[in-house]
Amino acid sequence: MKSDEDQIRELVSTWHAASRSDDIDAVLNLMTDDVVFLIPGRPPMSKEEFAAVSKVAPGAPRPRIVAKSDIQEIQVVDDWAFMWTRLSVSMTPPGATEALERTGHTLTVLRKMRGKWLIARDANLLSPVQKPPTLN
Amino acid sequence: MKSDEDQIRELVSTWHAASRSDDIDAVLNLMTDDVVFLIPGRPPMSKEEFAAVSKVAPGAPRPRIVAKSDIQEIQVVDDWAFMWTRLSVSMTPPGATEALERTGHTLTVLRKMRGKWLIARDANLLSPVQKPPTLN
Repeated sequence: MKSDEDQIRELVSTWHAASRSDDIDAVLNLMTDDVVFLIPGRPPMSKEEFAAVSKVAPGAPRPRIVAKSDIQEIQVVDDWAFMWTRLSVSMTPPGATEALERTGHTLTVLRKMRGKWLIARDANLLSPVQKPPTLN
Repeated sequence: MKSDEDQIRELVSTWHAASRSDDIDAVLNLMTDDVVFLIPGRPPMSKEEFAAVSKVAPGAPRPRIVAKSDIQEIQVVDDWAFMWTRLSVSMTPPGATEALERTGHTLTVLRKMRGKWLIARDANLLSPVQKPPTLN
Protein backbone atom coordinates (compact mmCIF):
# COMPACT_ATOMS: atom_id res chain seq x y z
CA MET A 1 0.00 0.00 0.00
CA LYS A 2 1.55 3.24 -1.16
CA SER A 3 1.57 6.27 1.17
CA ASP A 4 -0.57 9.28 0.26
CA GLU A 5 2.60 11.23 -0.49
CA ASP A 6 3.81 8.51 -2.88
CA GLN A 7 0.39 8.44 -4.58
CA ILE A 8 0.57 12.21 -5.08
CA ARG A 9 4.10 11.94 -6.53
CA GLU A 10 2.76 9.28 -8.88
CA LEU A 11 -0.09 11.61 -9.93
CA VAL A 12 2.50 14.25 -10.90
CA SER A 13 4.48 11.71 -12.98
CA THR A 14 1.30 10.46 -14.65
CA TRP A 15 0.27 14.06 -15.44
CA HIS A 16 3.59 14.81 -17.15
CA ALA A 17 3.59 11.51 -19.08
CA ALA A 18 -0.01 12.02 -20.28
CA SER A 19 0.73 15.65 -21.28
CA ARG A 20 3.84 14.57 -23.20
CA SER A 21 1.87 11.97 -25.16
CA ASP A 22 -1.08 14.38 -25.76
CA ASP A 23 -3.45 12.08 -23.86
CA ILE A 24 -5.77 14.91 -22.79
CA ASP A 25 -8.46 12.55 -21.48
CA ALA A 26 -5.91 10.97 -19.13
CA VAL A 27 -4.93 14.46 -17.92
CA LEU A 28 -8.60 15.39 -17.36
CA ASN A 29 -9.01 12.22 -15.25
CA LEU A 30 -6.40 13.59 -12.82
CA MET A 31 -8.51 16.60 -11.75
CA THR A 32 -11.76 17.14 -9.86
CA ASP A 33 -14.81 18.26 -11.84
CA ASP A 34 -14.76 21.62 -10.01
CA VAL A 35 -11.01 22.18 -10.51
CA VAL A 36 -9.81 25.79 -10.76
CA PHE A 37 -6.55 26.77 -12.49
CA LEU A 38 -5.20 30.18 -11.51
CA ILE A 39 -2.74 31.85 -13.92
CA PRO A 40 -1.42 35.46 -13.80
CA GLY A 41 -3.18 37.87 -16.18
CA ARG A 42 -6.07 35.53 -17.05
CA PRO A 43 -9.45 34.66 -15.56
CA PRO A 44 -9.61 31.41 -13.54
CA MET A 45 -9.87 28.36 -15.82
CA SER A 46 -12.39 25.52 -15.34
CA LYS A 47 -12.05 21.86 -16.40
CA GLU A 48 -14.09 22.57 -19.56
CA GLU A 49 -11.83 25.51 -20.48
CA PHE A 50 -8.71 23.43 -19.76
CA ALA A 51 -10.04 20.73 -22.11
CA ALA A 52 -10.88 23.30 -24.81
CA VAL A 53 -7.42 24.92 -24.85
CA SER A 54 -5.65 21.53 -24.66
CA LYS A 55 -7.42 19.78 -27.50
CA VAL A 56 -5.87 20.06 -30.94
CA ALA A 57 -7.80 18.94 -34.04
CA PRO A 58 -6.92 15.36 -35.09
CA GLY A 59 -3.97 15.39 -37.48
CA ALA A 60 -3.08 19.01 -36.69
CA PRO A 61 0.55 19.69 -35.74
CA ARG A 62 1.11 19.74 -32.00
CA PRO A 63 3.57 21.71 -29.91
CA ARG A 64 6.29 19.67 -28.23
CA ILE A 65 6.05 20.12 -24.47
CA VAL A 66 8.66 18.93 -21.98
CA ALA A 67 8.01 19.63 -18.30
CA LYS A 68 10.31 18.97 -15.35
CA SER A 69 8.93 19.25 -11.84
CA ASP A 70 10.81 19.21 -8.58
CA ILE A 71 8.40 18.75 -5.66
CA GLN A 72 9.42 20.97 -2.74
CA GLU A 73 6.74 19.98 -0.23
CA ILE A 74 3.65 17.79 0.18
CA GLN A 75 1.37 18.18 3.22
CA VAL A 76 -1.49 15.67 3.60
CA VAL A 77 -4.43 16.44 5.94
CA ASP A 78 -7.09 13.73 5.82
CA ASP A 79 -8.50 13.64 2.29
CA TRP A 80 -6.94 16.98 1.35
CA ALA A 81 -3.36 17.90 0.56
CA PHE A 82 -1.32 20.79 -0.68
CA MET A 83 1.85 20.63 -2.74
CA TRP A 84 4.51 23.18 -3.59
CA THR A 85 6.48 22.42 -6.77
CA ARG A 86 9.28 24.00 -8.73
CA LEU A 87 8.42 23.59 -12.40
CA SER A 88 10.11 24.20 -15.76
CA VAL A 89 8.20 23.88 -19.01
CA SER A 90 9.75 23.96 -22.48
CA MET A 91 7.28 24.37 -25.33
CA THR A 92 8.27 24.20 -28.98
CA PRO A 93 5.44 25.35 -31.31
CA PRO A 94 4.90 23.30 -34.49
CA GLY A 95 7.53 24.27 -37.09
CA ALA A 96 9.62 26.31 -34.63
CA THR A 97 13.24 25.45 -33.94
CA GLU A 98 13.55 27.23 -30.63
CA ALA A 99 11.63 26.33 -27.48
CA LEU A 100 9.83 28.84 -25.27
CA GLU A 101 11.06 28.27 -21.72
CA ARG A 102 8.98 29.06 -18.65
CA THR A 103 10.02 28.46 -15.06
CA GLY A 104 8.69 29.12 -11.58
CA HIS A 105 6.56 27.54 -8.89
CA THR A 106 3.12 26.03 -8.46
CA LEU A 107 0.96 25.75 -5.34
CA THR A 108 -1.63 23.00 -5.70
CA VAL A 109 -4.53 21.81 -3.53
CA LEU A 110 -5.37 18.12 -3.98
CA ARG A 111 -8.35 16.08 -2.88
CA LYS A 112 -8.73 12.34 -2.40
CA MET A 113 -12.01 11.17 -3.92
CA ARG A 114 -13.08 7.52 -3.97
CA GLY A 115 -9.53 6.59 -2.96
CA LYS A 116 -7.82 8.54 -5.73
CA TRP A 117 -5.88 11.81 -5.40
CA LEU A 118 -6.97 14.55 -7.83
CA ILE A 119 -5.91 18.14 -8.52
CA ALA A 120 -8.55 20.53 -7.14
CA ARG A 121 -6.95 24.02 -7.20
CA ASP A 122 -3.74 25.00 -8.94
CA ALA A 123 -1.87 28.30 -8.85
CA ASN A 124 0.66 28.46 -11.72
CA LEU A 125 3.33 31.14 -11.14
CA LEU A 126 5.52 30.32 -14.14
CA SER A 127 7.10 33.21 -16.03
CA PRO A 128 9.24 33.34 -19.20
CA VAL A 129 12.93 32.63 -18.74
CA GLN A 130 14.96 35.73 -19.60
CA LYS A 131 17.59 34.59 -22.07
CA PRO A 132 20.78 36.56 -22.63
CA PRO A 133 20.69 38.35 -26.00
CA THR A 134 22.32 36.44 -28.86
CA LEU A 135 25.39 38.18 -30.32
CA ASN A 136 25.81 37.89 -34.10
CA MET B 1 -17.12 31.57 19.54
CA LYS B 2 -16.31 32.51 15.96
CA SER B 3 -16.16 29.81 13.28
CA ASP B 4 -12.79 29.00 11.72
CA GLU B 5 -13.96 30.59 8.49
CA ASP B 6 -14.89 33.82 10.30
CA GLN B 7 -11.51 33.83 12.06
CA ILE B 8 -9.76 33.49 8.68
CA ARG B 9 -11.84 36.34 7.23
CA GLU B 10 -10.84 38.42 10.24
CA LEU B 11 -7.17 37.56 9.61
CA VAL B 12 -7.50 38.94 6.06
CA SER B 13 -9.09 42.18 7.34
CA THR B 14 -6.41 42.55 10.03
CA TRP B 15 -3.69 41.98 7.40
CA HIS B 16 -5.05 44.76 5.15
CA ALA B 17 -5.55 47.18 8.07
CA ALA B 18 -2.01 46.55 9.40
CA SER B 19 -0.51 46.93 5.89
CA ARG B 20 -2.40 50.21 5.36
CA SER B 21 -1.07 51.65 8.63
CA ASP B 22 2.49 50.35 7.97
CA ASP B 23 2.37 48.18 11.09
CA ILE B 24 4.83 45.60 9.71
CA ASP B 25 5.22 43.83 13.07
CA ALA B 26 1.46 43.23 13.15
CA VAL B 27 1.63 41.82 9.62
CA LEU B 28 4.55 39.52 10.58
CA ASN B 29 2.45 38.21 13.51
CA LEU B 30 -0.12 36.91 11.00
CA MET B 31 2.26 34.39 9.38
CA THR B 32 4.05 31.22 10.47
CA ASP B 33 7.81 31.38 11.03
CA ASP B 34 8.34 29.05 8.05
CA VAL B 35 5.97 30.98 5.71
CA VAL B 36 6.76 30.90 1.98
CA PHE B 37 5.56 33.61 -0.43
CA LEU B 38 5.52 32.57 -4.09
CA ILE B 39 5.55 35.35 -6.70
CA PRO B 40 6.05 35.01 -10.49
CA GLY B 41 9.59 35.78 -11.69
CA ARG B 42 11.19 35.83 -8.24
CA PRO B 43 12.66 33.26 -5.87
CA PRO B 44 10.38 32.16 -2.98
CA MET B 45 10.38 34.72 -0.14
CA SER B 46 10.81 33.84 3.55
CA LYS B 47 9.49 35.75 6.59
CA GLU B 48 12.89 37.46 7.03
CA GLU B 49 12.89 38.58 3.38
CA PHE B 50 9.27 39.77 3.66
CA ALA B 51 10.27 41.85 6.70
CA ALA B 52 13.34 43.27 4.92
CA VAL B 53 11.43 44.44 1.84
CA SER B 54 8.52 45.80 3.92
CA LYS B 55 10.49 47.91 6.37
CA VAL B 56 11.11 51.53 5.44
CA ALA B 57 13.61 53.66 7.40
CA PRO B 58 11.89 55.75 10.13
CA GLY B 59 10.83 59.12 8.72
CA ALA B 60 11.33 58.00 5.09
CA PRO B 61 8.42 58.57 2.71
CA ARG B 62 6.20 55.54 2.31
CA PRO B 63 4.17 54.33 -0.65
CA ARG B 64 0.39 54.50 -0.22
CA ILE B 65 -1.05 51.01 -0.57
CA VAL B 66 -4.75 50.24 -0.84
CA ALA B 67 -5.77 46.58 -1.19
CA LYS B 68 -9.22 45.15 -1.79
CA SER B 69 -9.77 41.44 -1.41
CA ASP B 70 -12.78 39.40 -2.35
CA ILE B 71 -12.60 35.92 -0.83
CA GLN B 72 -13.82 33.29 -3.31
CA GLU B 73 -13.46 30.18 -1.17
CA ILE B 74 -12.26 28.97 2.22
CA GLN B 75 -11.84 25.25 2.96
CA VAL B 76 -10.96 24.24 6.53
CA VAL B 77 -9.52 20.75 7.24
CA ASP B 78 -8.61 20.32 10.93
CA ASP B 79 -5.86 22.82 11.74
CA TRP B 80 -5.14 23.55 8.07
CA ALA B 81 -7.10 25.59 5.55
CA PHE B 82 -6.78 26.90 2.05
CA MET B 83 -8.23 30.11 0.68
CA TRP B 84 -8.72 31.44 -2.85
CA THR B 85 -9.01 35.22 -3.07
CA ARG B 86 -9.49 37.78 -5.79
CA LEU B 87 -7.22 40.71 -4.94
CA SER B 88 -6.61 44.24 -6.24
CA VAL B 89 -3.71 46.32 -4.99
CA SER B 90 -3.18 50.01 -5.75
CA MET B 91 0.28 51.34 -4.85
CA THR B 92 1.23 55.00 -5.13
CA PRO B 93 5.01 55.54 -4.72
CA PRO B 94 6.08 58.56 -2.61
CA GLY B 95 5.77 61.74 -4.70
CA ALA B 96 3.86 60.05 -7.54
CA THR B 97 0.39 61.20 -8.54
CA GLU B 98 -0.66 58.04 -10.32
CA ALA B 99 -1.13 54.66 -8.66
CA LEU B 100 0.24 51.38 -9.99
CA GLU B 101 -2.66 48.93 -10.15
CA ARG B 102 -2.24 45.18 -9.90
CA THR B 103 -5.03 42.64 -9.93
CA GLY B 104 -5.45 38.87 -9.92
CA HIS B 105 -5.83 35.95 -7.55
CA THR B 106 -4.08 34.43 -4.57
CA LEU B 107 -4.08 30.84 -3.32
CA THR B 108 -3.14 30.64 0.35
CA VAL B 109 -2.51 27.78 2.77
CA LEU B 110 -3.25 28.63 6.40
CA ARG B 111 -2.39 26.85 9.62
CA LYS B 112 -3.97 27.10 13.06
CA MET B 113 -1.24 27.27 15.70
CA ARG B 114 -1.99 27.66 19.40
CA GLY B 115 -5.59 28.52 18.49
CA LYS B 116 -4.67 31.24 15.99
CA TRP B 117 -4.90 31.07 12.18
CA LEU B 118 -1.70 32.10 10.37
CA ILE B 119 -0.62 32.35 6.73
CA ALA B 120 1.75 29.45 5.90
CA ARG B 121 2.08 29.42 2.08
CA ASP B 122 0.92 32.11 -0.32
CA ALA B 123 0.88 32.10 -4.11
CA ASN B 124 0.43 35.65 -5.44
CA LEU B 125 -0.71 35.71 -9.09
CA LEU B 126 -1.27 39.46 -9.40
CA SER B 127 -0.29 41.15 -12.65
CA PRO B 128 -0.33 44.81 -13.77
CA VAL B 129 -3.66 46.18 -14.94
CA GLN B 130 -3.47 47.10 -18.63
CA LYS B 131 -4.77 50.65 -18.88
CA PRO B 132 -6.11 52.04 -22.15
CA PRO B 133 -3.70 54.59 -23.63
CA THR B 134 -4.45 58.21 -22.71
CA LEU B 135 -5.43 60.40 -25.68
CA ASN B 136 -4.25 64.00 -25.54
